[in-house]
Parts: sequence; structure tokens; C-alpha cells
Amino acid sequence: MRVGFIGLGNMGLGMASNLLAKGANLTVHNRSQNKVDELAAKGASRAGSIADLTTATDLVLICMATVDLSNQYLLGPDGVIENAREGQIIVDHATVDLVTSRRCAEAAAEKGALFLDAPISGGPLGAADGTLAIMVGGDEAAFRKASPELDKMGANVRYMGPSGAGTAMKLINQLLVAVNTAGAAEAFQLANSAHVDINAAAELLSVSWGGSTMVSRSAPITADRSFASSAAPIRNLVKDIGIITSLGKEAGLALPLSEAAEALINETHEIDPDYDIAGMLEALERRSE
Amino acid sequence: MRVGFIGLGNMGLGMASNLLAKGANLTVHNRSQNKVDELAAKGASRAGSIADLTTATDLVLICMATVDLSNQYLLGPDGVIENAREGQIIVDHATVDLVTSRRCAEAAAEKGALFLDAPISGGPLGAADGTLAIMVGGDEAAFRKASPELDKMGANVRYMGPSGAGTAMKLINQLLVAVNTAGAAEAFQLANSAHVDINAAAELLSVSWGGSTMVSRSAPITADRSFASSAAPIRNLVKDIGIITSLGKEAGLALPLSEAAEALINETHEIDPDYDIAGMLEALERRSE
Repeated sequence: MRVGFIGLGNMGLGMASNLLAKGANLTVHNRSQNKVDELAAKGASRAGSIADLTTATDLVLICMATVDLSNQYLLGPDGVIENAREGQIIVDHATVDLVTSRRCAEAAAEKGALFLDAPISGGPLGAADGTLAIMVGGDEAAFRKASPELDKMGANVRYMGPSGAGTAMKLINQLLVAVNTAGAAEAFQLANSAHVDINAAAELLSVSWGGSTMVSRSAPITADRSFASSAAPIRNLVKDIGIITSLGKEAGLALPLSEAAEALINETHEIDPDYDIAGMLEALERRSE
Repeated sequence: MRVGFIGLGNMGLGMASNLLAKGANLTVHNRSQNKVDELAAKGASRAGSIADLTTATDLVLICMATVDLSNQYLLGPDGVIENAREGQIIVDHATVDLVTSRRCAEAAAEKGALFLDAPISGGPLGAADGTLAIMVGGDEAAFRKASPELDKMGANVRYMGPSGAGTAMKLINQLLVAVNTAGAAEAFQLANSAHVDINAAAELLSVSWGGSTMVSRSAPITADRSFASSAAPIRNLVKDIGIITSLGKEAGLALPLSEAAEALINETHEIDPDYDIAGMLEALERRSE
């Protein structure tokens, strides 16, 4: 199977590198050429345009940094779907809104192509290690065909359901990251006010009902107040929580905790866009003053 | 060490039974006599009054169902502290507010007695099995003296810090139970709207950043919509989240997610006080209609 990869950014470069290292027949395209050169040196073919890449491959993977870029590269003129053909499989790894995922699936279907929404979780480290979680929605037969290639990039590749289910699953995870991190910040603020050691609290919580992955992750960062610079900067969560609360409004779903978390996330972003998500504690403290 | 236990309710009966089964020299007191009879048949001594129990023992454990009863039995006329003596240790296992815990510690200190706030977590099953988490605040030497008896009732007995730290730790856990359960309800509502299977989502979340004990617990209950009757009824959380948000207001701590969870918890309680805490999903759905 000839595989194409578009978007060699923070995540895409690691993902494409793993495809190559595990033997994929890979063609790549990217706006800045130095990333293309890096992969070409390891054996990837180059495509000068999206049209060239799409025409030359059977499976097109794309991972753009913003919803606007995903829309442009997938749905725009000279984009992937305009150049797609019968039976071709197109996989979007970006976190976008449900409307975008479903619009891509419909546009692809008009060309006889198959679109999979397949957001990723695990960060740049997971992309580099090939241990990403990949949550896939769309045609199940297309998923089975694409799976051997997706498995080269991820440790937890899961079929979640029909078109949009992969995107929904990613949004579900991000909703919980946002709410559970905000909840942990409130809990740790209470711990500080009562002179309870945060790491001791987290240790007890890990065997109690209040435990969560975000409590365990935030505790040492919060105890040390090492919020500056992080692999999980608040600016990424600003984008995702915005998609989630917009979806809630469009779909008429009440999401009161997500909305409360969004306000806190935006306040943390105003302190420093590069702050760790656990830095929500500081936004809380500013409100409490 | 002569141990007294006051309050043989839902939790207290199991706790006192474990003390007896593990060889404690136990005296008990309770309003309804059938529970006293049950323990007396297994070897416990009876005390006709709180004064009698306090006078006859070295370590007094108490577990009442409401903050009012805790106040009355501990601080009221003819209560435990009025009858306490130099060096005696008094342990409150109820979940109360921080002011109550600190007031008890001060009143006990005036008698030369030592008060430990020691709320429990693990439910009636944990009480019966002797596997409770017990979070203890107060004098550390008194904690060490009481530990061998506390260990008979709990699998995770932890010293959390000075007076009030045990109560604060319990409130921290309950804050997270409330917020994480509400967040899980929002996430599962989103899953339902996008046709994502809830148990499949929970399985992926358990290896992703969005994972929590409450997501794992709520998922099967929510997938089956088996909210009626539960070991974790919403009425218990109504009491605890009220203590938490009141504390926030008194201490000037911003707790926006806890407040959003409180509204949802109260709406769930209006549906059915015996509903499982995962039934918050239904309160969300009523708002979304």
C-alpha cells in the first residue's frame, strides 16, 4: 500500500518517521522543505503538491495544526478530496470539530473515496515513540485496510464507530482532561489552605474514588509550582475546549462543568500561553485573592 | 487499650464489628439497642450513656450520620468532650466541616484530651470488610497511639497533617468525586450524541489522559442506565458538596467547577435522592431537552 503523509509538524514528523522506520512505502508533503528533506534522506518520496501526493498514493494521512488548515488542505481547491479517487482512503489525524469531520466524509463519498476521522492522543513524545492512541471513526472496512499502517504510529489504535466517532472520542478525552485538571486545581487549592501535602494527598487519592490521571499528573507539578514551559501547554487546551463548548451549544447539550473549565483555561492562557495545564491553580488563586 | 465506639449506623456497625473481630477491648453506645445487642453478643461491653462510655475507655471513636449529630454528641452537654479527661484520645470518623473539626480539637485541648479528625472513605462495603481509607488530622503522637486500633478498620490509614487535615483530605476526595463524576456525565452525554459506545470509550480513557476512577465506575452504570438504588446515592454527595462550597465561600476560595457540580448534584437529588451519583447524566439530559 502506497502511503502519503501531509503535515510534518510537531506530531506529523514523528508519525511519518515511524511509518518509514517500520517499512511503509511513504510519500510526504509539507510547506517547509527541511522536514521533507529529513524524511527523504531516510527513504521517503517527495510530492511537490497535495494533488501529486494524492494521485501517487492509496492511503492519505494528514495532520494539520489548526481546523482552518485541515479544512483548506482537505476540502479546499486542489485539496486532498478534490484529487481523491474511487476506493482511496483518507485519514485526518487532527483534532477538529464534528461538522468538519462529517463534511469531509460526505465530500469524500461523492468521489467514491473513504474518509476516516482519526485524532491522536499522546503528544509529541508519543508521536516520536510510535505509542499514540489513535481513535478512528468512519467506514469499518476502510479502517481494517488502514490499520496495518496506523499500527506503525500508535500503540492503541481503536475503531470507535461511524463517521465522527473518532473525533467525538478525542473531544470526550479532552473534555475530561479539561474538567479533571480544573477539578484537581480546586482540590489542591483546598489542600494548600488546610496545610495538606499535595503529593501525600495525590497518593491517597490514587487508591480512593477521587483519583484521576490528571490528579496524579498535576500533583508534582503543583507541589513544585513548576508551571512554566510544558509538554502540555494551556494553549492547546484553549483550542480543544472551545471546540467542545461550541459543539455543546450547536447540539443543545448542557456542559456546565466544561464551560466552567473553559473560563479557567482562558484565564490561565492570559497568564502565559505556554503554562502547563496544571497552572489553572494560579488562575483560581487570582480569583480567590 | 480500652476502645469505645459511638454510632453503630451504616458505617459504624461494620467498623465496630472489625474492631471486635480483631481483638479490641470494645465498649459500644448507640441510640437503637438492637445494634448494641448484636455487638454485645459478640463480646462488646455496653455503655448506657456517652458519659459512661467516655469514662470507661481510653480511645473514643465516633461516627454520626450528620454534622448536627456530630456536634451534639461531641460538643453538647453530657457529650464526649465534656466527659473527656487528660490524655484521652477522641476520634471523629464523620465527614464534617473544617470549623467543626477545629472546634472539637480546641474543646478537647481545654480538657487535656487529644482530638483526631479521621473521616473515612470506602462505603458500607469497605466498613464491613475492614478496608476503609482513614484520613487523619491532629496530634501526630496521638495518631501513633490510636493507629493499631484504626488499622483494624482500614486498609489505608494515613496521617495527613495538623488538626483539620483529615477532614480537608476527605473534602478534597469528595470534591473530586463530585467534579469527576459530573465531568464523566458530560463526556458520556457527548458520547451518546455521537454514537460512541460508552464502555469502549471508558476502556480507551483508562489508558488516556482523560481517565479517572469515576469514569471507570460510571461507565457501565451509564451504559445500562441502572441509576436506581445504589451504594453511592446522590443524597450523600449533596451533604458533602454543600460542605465544600460553603468552605470555599467562608475561606474565599474560588471553586467554580465544584459549584457547577453542586447545581447538577442538587438537580439529580430532585429526580431521586437514592439515584446513583452517575445519574447526574439524567439531570444534564433534562437541561439539554
